[in-house]
Amino acid sequence: MRVPNHVGIIPDGNRRWSVNMGLAKEMGYDYGLSPGLEMFKLCKEAGVKELTYYGFTTDNTKRPKQQTEAFTKACVKAVEMLSKEDASLLVVGNTESPVFPRELKAYTKRKTFGNGGIKVNFLVNYGWHWDLENLFLEGDKEKKGKKNIMDSIYTSDISRVDLIIRWGGRRRLSGFLPVQSIYSDFYVIDDFWPDFKPDHFYNALKWYENQDITLGG
Amino acid sequence: MRVPNHVGIIPDGNRRWSVNMGLAKEMGYDYGLSPGLEMFKLCKEAGVKELTYYGFTTDNTKRPKQQTEAFTKACVKAVEMLSKEDASLLVVGNTESPVFPRELKAYTKRKTFGNGGIKVNFLVNYGWHWDLENLFLEGDKEKKGKKNIMDSIYTSDISRVDLIIRWGGRRRLSGFLPVQSIYSDFYVIDDFWPDFKPDHFYNALKWYENQDITLGG
Repeated sequence: MRVPNHVGIIPDGNRRWSVNMGLAKEMGYDYGLSPGLEMFKLCKEAGVKELTYYGFTTDNTKRPKQQTEAFTKACVKAVEMLSKEDASLLVVGNTESPVFPRELKAYTKRKTFGNGGIKVNFLVNYGWHWDLENLFLEGDKEKKGKKNIMDSIYTSDISRVDLIIRWGGRRRLSGFLPVQSIYSDFYVIDDFWPDFKPDHFYNALKWYENQDITLGG
Repeated sequence: MRVPNHVGIIPDGNRRWSVNMGLAKEMGYDYGLSPGLEMFKLCKEAGVKELTYYGFTTDNTKRPKQQTEAFTKACVKAVEMLSKEDASLLVVGNTESPVFPRELKAYTKRKTFGNGGIKVNFLVNYGWHWDLENLFLEGDKEKKGKKNIMDSIYTSDISRVDLIIRWGGRRRLSGFLPVQSIYSDFYVIDDFWPDFKPDHFYNALKWYENQDITLGG
């Protein structure tokens, strides 16, 4: 089986799931924690080498306070859960903003937990605009054409994504790593993230196996 | 009906169509010309304000010579066909390379044809890396945070894409305008581009109407 090296996870639909369950919108995020850990374990088992979670974005922080508090807490918990596993963990996002959770500052340099192995990236207060802004700065250092975009964005430690899996039915990237997603295959699952099932992942892998990877060639 | 302002077209599957028809791989591109014109007319009718065609990319130019010649000729013909319509036309791509067709140099400044109206962008020898490289240059001029990414890429005259329609079944962007595609809804049609039918477009519009547009918020 041809397994993607790097899987990107867009765990969408938490609020819609909550509303369907008769809960307040912000309640759903906590129900996404155990799916997150399960996905990590399935990826390791399958031989995936790198895994990136779309935590929350600078766009998301414009939402009502109950929601921003709830998803921020859920991200902190998720990272703490992952730090108990065997993984090489990195939290990436705009740390200069007050909405970046203090608890996660310690994770913004890649660090090996347990026996390491799979690279796990967790996007926290990530913004596509923020990520690309570093190119303005890098331009000062060298001349046009000498620089590589992949090495010059803020998320240069995150490699090209092979397979993006999005829950919640929406067929869009919503700012997820625009440079690393250039050639990604994009698999959408209609179920909401808290309704995660291992079959979602297995079906995505099966589908990915049949994709003809050309990298634009 | 909520109509997308800006539609992006990825007319893929020309070579696979050719092979299915028992033709040489490069023969399919010519069969994509009349679909291209038809799409233009349907978009105008529907009230779309801007339309971008993915002609060919710097990645594509690494293919065998028969193919690169065939798709280059088809792009030249397509632009010449569109210049006989009422449109505000712009060809965008890396003109500094010898593979950029001379015939299209005249179109690299936006120009109104007929009675104008719809903005039409045609990507020719376009590269996502090339597009973003301009950010290195813009960085020299102003300080971090002062600059807007959308205004600083080479394709700054092309606005945010609302709906991307891709023919040929592949669920990936393949380098199509990474910045303008950040929030785009992505509709994939399994049929190959030369098998274009108006229903493809109508179904995409119907689907788009039901999407909840949040721009990441």
